[in-house]
Parts: sequence; C-alpha cells; structure tokens
Amino acid sequence: MHIGLIGLGKMGFNMRGRLREKGIEVTGFDRSPDRTDVPSLEELVGALPTPRIIWVMVPAGQITDAVVKDLSELLSPGDLVIDGGNSKFTDDQIHATLLAQKGVRFLDCGVSGGVWGLENGYGLMAGGTQEDIELAMPIFDALRPEGERSESFVHVGDVGAGHYAKMVHNGIEYGLMQSYAEGYELLEAKDIVKDVHGTFAAWQKGTVVRSWLLDLLVKALQEDPGLSKIAGYVEDSGEGRWTVEEAIANSVPAPAITAALFARFASRQDDAPAMKMVAALRNQFGGHAVKPAQPKAE
Amino acid sequence: MHIGLIGLGKMGFNMRGRLREKGIEVTGFDRSPDRTDVPSLEELVGALPTPRIIWVMVPAGQITDAVVKDLSELLSPGDLVIDGGNSKFTDDQIHATLLAQKGVRFLDCGVSGGVWGLENGYGLMAGGTQEDIELAMPIFDALRPEGERSESFVHVGDVGAGHYAKMVHNGIEYGLMQSYAEGYELLEAKDIVKDVHGTFAAWQKGTVVRSWLLDLLVKALQEDPGLSKIAGYVEDSGEGRWTVEEAIANSVPAPAITAALFARFASRQDDAPAMKMVAALRNQFGGHAVKPAQPKAE
Amino acid sequence: MHIGLIGLGKMGFNMRGRLREKGIEVTGFDRSPDRTDVPSLEELVGALPTPRIIWVMVPAGQITDAVVKDLSELLSPGDLVIDGGNSKFTDDQIHATLLAQKGVRFLDCGVSGGVWGLENGYGLMAGGTQEDIELAMPIFDALRPEGERSESFVHVGDVGAGHYAKMVHNGIEYGLMQSYAEGYELLEAKDIVKDVHGTFAAWQKGTVVRSWLLDLLVKALQEDPGLSKIAGYVEDSGEGRWTVEEAIANSVPAPAITAALFARFASRQDDAPAMKMVAALRNQFGGHAVKPAQPKAE
Amino acid sequence: MHIGLIGLGKMGFNMRGRLREKGIEVTGFDRSPDRTDVPSLEELVGALPTPRIIWVMVPAGQITDAVVKDLSELLSPGDLVIDGGNSKFTDDQIHATLLAQKGVRFLDCGVSGGVWGLENGYGLMAGGTQEDIELAMPIFDALRPEGERSESFVHVGDVGAGHYAKMVHNGIEYGLMQSYAEGYELLEAKDIVKDVHGTFAAWQKGTVVRSWLLDLLVKALQEDPGLSKIAGYVEDSGEGRWTVEEAIANSVPAPAITAALFARFASRQDDAPAMKMVAALRNQFGGHAVKPAQPKAE
Repeated sequence: MHIGLIGLGKMGFNMRGRLREKGIEVTGFDRSPDRTDVPSLEELVGALPTPRIIWVMVPAGQITDAVVKDLSELLSPGDLVIDGGNSKFTDDQIHATLLAQKGVRFLDCGVSGGVWGLENGYGLMAGGTQEDIELAMPIFDALRPEGERSESFVHVGDVGAGHYAKMVHNGIEYGLMQSYAEGYELLEAKDIVKDVHGTFAAWQKGTVVRSWLLDLLVKALQEDPGLSKIAGYVEDSGEGRWTVEEAIANSVPAPAITAALFARFASRQDDAPAMKMVAALRNQFGGHAVKPAQPKAE
Repeated sequence: MHIGLIGLGKMGFNMRGRLREKGIEVTGFDRSPDRTDVPSLEELVGALPTPRIIWVMVPAGQITDAVVKDLSELLSPGDLVIDGGNSKFTDDQIHATLLAQKGVRFLDCGVSGGVWGLENGYGLMAGGTQEDIELAMPIFDALRPEGERSESFVHVGDVGAGHYAKMVHNGIEYGLMQSYAEGYELLEAKDIVKDVHGTFAAWQKGTVVRSWLLDLLVKALQEDPGLSKIAGYVEDSGEGRWTVEEAIANSVPAPAITAALFARFASRQDDAPAMKMVAALRNQFGGHAVKPAQPKAE
Repeated sequence: MHIGLIGLGKMGFNMRGRLREKGIEVTGFDRSPDRTDVPSLEELVGALPTPRIIWVMVPAGQITDAVVKDLSELLSPGDLVIDGGNSKFTDDQIHATLLAQKGVRFLDCGVSGGVWGLENGYGLMAGGTQEDIELAMPIFDALRPEGERSESFVHVGDVGAGHYAKMVHNGIEYGLMQSYAEGYELLEAKDIVKDVHGTFAAWQKGTVVRSWLLDLLVKALQEDPGLSKIAGYVEDSGEGRWTVEEAIANSVPAPAITAALFARFASRQDDAPAMKMVAALRNQFGGHAVKPAQPKAE
Repeated sequence: MHIGLIGLGKMGFNMRGRLREKGIEVTGFDRSPDRTDVPSLEELVGALPTPRIIWVMVPAGQITDAVVKDLSELLSPGDLVIDGGNSKFTDDQIHATLLAQKGVRFLDCGVSGGVWGLENGYGLMAGGTQEDIELAMPIFDALRPEGERSESFVHVGDVGAGHYAKMVHNGIEYGLMQSYAEGYELLEAKDIVKDVHGTFAAWQKGTVVRSWLLDLLVKALQEDPGLSKIAGYVEDSGEGRWTVEEAIANSVPAPAITAALFARFASRQDDAPAMKMVAALRNQFGGHAVKPAQPKAE
C-alpha cells in the first residue's frame, strides 16, 4: 500500500516512521523542506496510485480547512481523505460534504498516543462508512499497537464520530491529569510525607490508580525533582473546551472535567479580575485588608 | 441595662457605639489603651451589676478560648457570657461547659453586618436556652436594625446553633461573592460590553440579582474603576472552610460554595504545584512546550 | 407615546400594564385572543404612529426569529424594533442586519424583574446606538423603577451588548440561587438548627447576605414549610448555558456558576449514567456492593 | 517467617492466600468461624514466635481501635503491629502511642489493589521507623507484585504517612473514576456515537488514557452492556472525604476530587433540598412552573 501523509510535525513525522516500519509506503508532504518528501501537494497527489489515500495530520481549524479545500480540487472520484488531526467533530461533516462534491471519500480518525506512538503504536477512533474504513484498515493496523484490533481501534460511527470520541478521550484526559495533580499538590503540602516521588513510583504496579499517565508522572518527577524547572502555567488546545460545551449541550453534568479546564484557565492568570472583586467586596463590607496590586513590570 | 463588652476591634468598637446610642450602658475592655474603658478584665467584672452580662467580641480560636477561661475564673453564678465572635460551633459547647462549672451561663451569637452595622444594625443568630435569650434580648434589640425582630434576629437552637447558622451564612456569602465576581470577570473580558460599572449599577433596582453585596460592588467600582489598585489575592478566615467540612460531614453537595473557597486558595498561589504537574504531564506525553519556572525574586 | 408590544405572556402582559400606568399608550398583540388588543401583526403595525416603535417580548430563538422576520416585511424605514426577550446575544446582530436591510432600526434590551416587575419596575440593559436608545428612553423610564436612572437602566454597548449583560446577569443569578440553596440544605441537615425558616428570615435585615432573592426564599418557606410540595427538579432556560459557554470562550474560570448549572442537570436525572459507571468500577476493583437498577415503572 | 493476620474479609482473606503462596506462614483470625485459623486473639498471639508480627486488616475506626486496644493488652515488648486497613492517618499516632506504652511497635501501611491483589499483588505505602520497616519487609515483598520494589512499595515517612499516602491515592481514584464516568455519560448521550463499549475497549492500548481502571471499565461494560443492572447510586467510605478535608486544611485547591465526592453525595439523593429551593426561587421570581413533589411510597 502506498499513501500520502500531509503534515510532518510532532505527530505526523512519527506516524510516517511507524507506517514505513510496518511496510506501508508513505509519501509525506510538509511545508518544512527538511521534512517533506515532495515539494508540493500537486506532486504528492501525482505520486500516489489510485484510488489515492491521503492522511491529513495538520493543526485543526483553518489549516485543516485549507488542506481539505486544496485536496478537493486536486483529487479524483474514489480517492479517500482521512483527517487524523484534532478537528472539531462539527468540521467533519463540512469537510466530507466538500469532498463528496468531487466524489472524494472522507474518514475522520482520532489518534491518541502522543510522541510515544512511534514506538508503542496509537489508539485510533474512526468515523465514516464501513466501506471506507475497510479500505483504510491496513493503515489503521500499521499505526495501532500489535495485538487485538479491538483494543486499539474502533469504528465509532459515521463521519464525525471518530473525532467526537477523541474529543471525549481528551476531556477525560484533562480530568485524569487534574486528579493526579491535585493529589501531587496535597502530598507536597503535607510535611509528614517525606517521599512524594517514591510514593507515586510505588503506585505503578499493583494499585488501583496505576496508568500510563502515572508512569509519565513518575518519569517527570525523576527528570525534574520537585518540578522546579516548570511553571504552573497550562495551555489548552480546544478539545477540553469542546467536551464541556458538548456536556452542556447534552445536559450532562461534567464537574470534574470542567474543574480541570477552569484550573488551566486560572493557571494562566496573574491577577484574576474575579478575585480582585472578591477582595474588594470583603474590604467593602468587613474592612478586610486588601493586597495592593503590583505595578506591572515595564 | 449595663453590660460589659470585651474586644473593641472593627466589630466590637462599632457595636459599643450602637449599643450606647440605643441606651445600653457599656463598659468596654480592649488590650488597646486607646479604646478600652477599663484597664483590666477584673475591673470590667467589678464595674458591672449582677447578674453580669458580658459580650465577647474577639478573634475566634485561642483568643476567645483564653477570654472565656479568664471569665470562668472571674464571674459568679448566674452571670451570662455571650460569644458574638466567629467561633467554630464546636467550640461553643466547650465554652458553655467550662462556664457552667462555675454556674455561669452562655449564649453564642453570630453577628453579621460588618463595618456597616453601626449605622444599619446587625443581623443576629443566637444559640442557647430560651431563658438566657430573654435576658439578653434588650442587647439584641439594640444591635439589630429597627423593625420586625424576626427579620434580624433568630433564636436558632441550643448552644452552638447560633454560630452554626453564622457559619452557613458566611459560606453562602462566599458563594454569592464568587458568583458576582465571575460575572464581573466575564463582562470585563467581553469587548462588546462598554460599561461594566454602569451595568452593575443598573442592577441595583428592579433586577433579580439586586442585593446589598451588589450595592457594595458598585461602590467598589466607583471608588476604584477597574479595581486597578487591588490584587486578586483573597484571604479566608475559617468559616468557608468549616462550611465545606460540615457539608462533607453531612453528605450535602456544596459545589458552588466549595468553588468559591478553592478560588480563594488558588488566588494566593503564584505557581501551583498541581498545575506544574499538569504542564509536566502534557510535556511528557505530547511534547507540548512548557513555560519555564521564573527564578524567585531575591 | 404610542408603541406596539408583541407577546403578552407572563412578562409582556405585566409590562403592558406598567407602561399604560405610566402613561404610554400600548397596542398589544398576542396569539391568545383573550389578551391581544388587535387580531394581527398587520393591524398592530397599522395602528401605530410613525416612526413606529415595537417591543418584542416573545420566547427566544425560533419564535423571536419569526416575529423579527415578519416585522422586517411589515415595517418601514425609520421604525424601531426592540427585542426585550431573552435572546442569545449572537442572534441580535442577525436580527439587526435583517431589519437594517429595510431601514428598520433595532435595539436589544435585557429585562430583569420577573413577575414582580409590574409593581417594582424592571432592571433594563440595552444595546444599540445612542440615537435609538434616546428614541426609546420614555419606554425605558416607564418600565424601570422610579429614582435614579443609572440604578435601573444601562446602555451597555452596541447591538447585542444588552442581551450579553442580561445573560451574565442570569448566570450570576444561577450562582446566587445555588449558594443560598446549598446553605439551606446544610441548615436542614444539621439537627442543632431548630428553626431554618426563622434563620433565613432573620437574614433579611442587617446581614451581608441580604438580597431580594433572600426575601423570596423566606416567602417560599412561609408558603410551603419544608418545601414539601415541590420536587428537587430544576429546569434551565438557556442563559446559564450560554454564560458558561462564554466563560469558556473567553478563558474565564466560572466554577460557581457552572456548579449551579450542573446541579440543575443532575437534579433532572433519575439514574445518572456516570454514577452507574462509578458504582460499576467500585464493584470491579473492590467487590463493593452495588444497588440494583430499579425496574422502570410501566 | 510466621505472622498473624487479623481480619479475613474481602481483602484479608486474599492477602492470607497470597502470603502463604509466597512462603510466609500465616495464622489468621476472624470472627467468622468458617475463615479463622484460631478461635481467639489469645490463641493467635500464643501461636506466634517472638518478636510477634501481626497484620491488622479490619474496618477503620471503632473496629480497628478495639483490635489495637486488645493487642496492646496481649502483646509483649518488641512485638510489631501493622495496620493495613484504611485507617485515618490521625488514628495512627493514637494507636502507636497506645502500643508504645507496652513497648509494642507500630507501622501503618496503605494497601491498594482490591480483590485483584491476590493475583496481581498489592501496592503498598508504609509509615513508621526504618527499623520496623525492615523487620516487615519480607511481608511487603510477598504482598507486592514481583519486580522492582520501588514500583510497588514505598516507605512514605513516619507513623501516619502510609495511611496519608493511601488516603490521597483514594482521593485521586475518586477523580479518575469520575472523569471516565463523565466521558462515558457524554458518549452515551450523543447519538452519533454508535459503539460506546467499543470506544472504551479501543482505548486500552496506545492511548493517553489507558489505565487499569479503564480495563475494568471495559470489563464492566462487557458483563453488563449499558450498565442496565446497576443503579446510579454510589457509596463512599471515608477516604474521599478525608482527602478533601486535608485539601482544605492545607489550602490546596482540589476541585476535581471534590467534584467526584459531591457527585457521589448527589447520586444518593432522591430529591435534594437544595434543588427544591432553586425550583422554589425560580417559581417565586419568574412564575416558572415547578414539578410537584412525589408522594413518598408507603
């Protein structure tokens, strides 16, 4: 099998490597001349046997939109585009419809595993028709870990369902990380606990909370004891927000995942307006002292 | 009526003023020579007619404990001590038992109204026996706003019940302030809102959210537009914590009040260990960039 | 002044009453023949002097959309439509644009005060141009409580800003109600509190938590002691959801308001799937007993 | 090595089995005649070589208190008691002091692994002196999974530290389970997701959220598709509460873990008083319909 892969960043680069190791021929395209196999999308399309299969692995939103639009102009009826990025599930139907106007087929596929996927394989959640899924199955089988297919690949539903499942996966991930992190802070705060790193390390085998994230947590503490080199500042990349929005849209209480999202927002605030207001109110009714605002650094 | 009042801080000083205005004779004692009417507790006790009534208005915990212990040694059977501070309700039974060993009676009374109580009167929540409540009623009537007694005074239950109600009152207060503050931050964040101060001001009459705290919020914004002089750093003084502990002890979900408490904790953190850990985990699995920790200022 | 008012439900009916009391001539239109003043929108439009001013007070979403569309076809350049309902702020620009195509002007106005507004007056938050605001000012002045205009009316910003402010107002309202409600549940749960109704009643004057909602809470407990007639089942009508969505979109932590929203969702669930899963997990790892699902009533 | 083990319930019974498999001689005592090896504590003590080592594996609180008291009367100087139950960390110092009066030594050891520990081994967190830890090490090595000791055993600190770490472990566990459960409910709620069970199954290998709890979740869905047999009613056994109390006592924001705890409380409520109040308030100000309370079943 010979496929195209657009986007050779942290994820796409590793995926090209794994696919090739597993015997799939891959022509990769990236804007970076150092990484790309071909100088243009046109040449990528020209290099592939028909029906062409092209895996798109670029940032969600405008960049994915643009790539899909370009592909809709370059591909031929019967070709298949797979969006493996972190697109919002509502984008998938738009992309599928655009491509379908040219007879081009579409699958969305959530991909989990991070930078470790090259070695470990990726967990995959796909949306689309059964026929298209079958066409792409050799790719899925190459990307996922060896072993039972059902433990690392799922056909979640029609177009959009794969990214929906990936979105929820990431929402859960927010909650899991926040839970470990709250426990970490509490262990660090309590003086009778003399060995926080050792405690997490000892949870790796046997305990109810053992997980891959826990293993990474232990690794992080080993590399940077006390996390002294890292600020308590956490970005978010969209899927946590969408998960909470979907929870709201479906009347599903999601307090733990939402707590994780808001904790990230708060981590990025120097001086939260809300908390200025609470301080101001306490001062107003009770005469409680306030901390003066710091002058902004020049 | 002639009573003693121990503690002439922000609250006690104003309360002495209001009691005197309402015709109650008050002998006040405070460690500060500028404020006290008598030089010692002994002279305070000596100055009062029997049965003596002494209102204690000092910080909860060790200081209240010490004052009650001193009074247990100075007072006589039939005297009455009223703890008007923010004591934890579990302290009340201890204090009552200690005093009862000398035949001294005890009431606990939660007092709300802050620095405005001098002028507006205070809301009062008392715990103790009906007989003791009746003895102290002229004091309660002087402290509370004029009008229906039932709108500003309640006999909540036996000893401890007054402070329990005050604790819940303060827990609610946390939630109310946090709710307004979140709305404030959102209005500030949204560029189509051109007049945040004016919006809160316009909520003072007619709307569902009108309240005394809202009036103070408007006043705070008037005095310090944009709250530019105040840091987003909020202390807490115990009653919010106790409310959540009691919610847990009674299996009562209290997510809004707890959110308010945790927001205060977070407001006091420069660099939360939990968020360092979430950043570290994102870096581990996804290679996401982290923000380096800032060197501590010397 | 003579205006049209479309929608004579709980809010619109009272508003017509208040406007007439204050000397504004109102022709009302409603689908209900018992309430309407004219049999059709066409007759409503025909009855008004130009430039016509029409206040729309119908349910947000499709019904408001339909009314605005109808008006865009019936009105003339220079006429003014005011949407006083609870429309989402993003709808306002759509409505304004549609009307502007016919030269018809548009204001959005959030209205708070509920069924009590007839007597107390309403709090008003308006969005639109200064010129249009001035045209409608006699209406605003009639609807709002007497006294300082700035305490009950605000021109928040351009089109959409009025409904945005109202949305945030309602989000705050969610948090306030949840805070009081959590305190209520805790007071009810604690046996040393003998007079829950009396405690809330005593908070009405003097305390920091006094508010109009508190007064209503006392009234509710008076009418139905222990709230024995009412189920713990709470609907939500959109603005709480939008507030949280906007908090997320603007990276504003809003944990208390969100807690209030999720508590409503949970109140409507008999048997939450999430909690079934937690029970299932505890059973899996710890052999903890589970409660069997109840057979559904036929 | 020959030790005593008190408590042969779900955990203790399996632990006796694992210890014996690993070559530790165990004399077990339980109130149940079917399970016990000896008829009385006295005979248990008499059967052991000195210095005696006795592992206590009974419910936390009064039962553990009673067992420790009994042991303090039966044991001799130099003997060692290990509390492997889920005692509150504050109990440990009390137990250690009581035993120390007789020269008896004490370790606390948190044990994780549930009913699967027999086969998989247990994760262990111990508190006490280095000397006592070393004495008990053959037991720890037998109980924990094979492999690196540091991945399944930790000496956390002095007496109490082991149970503290176990408490935090369980708090984290609450957050992890709640996070998966929220994701589960959202996937179930969304109609484009056609295979919820398959989705979780596909997360077992390769994804960032893979964990032992996830494997159990898949197993639970396999055994009871849709969890139709299980009610959304979740007990809690103390350690989640203590974790939140400790978070509060140490000013550590713990919103995700607390959300998990409150979700359990709410899962056990038919008709939450707080939500009755919110419904009542909405009815008061807006005339919103309420759902009447259901008559209680006889």
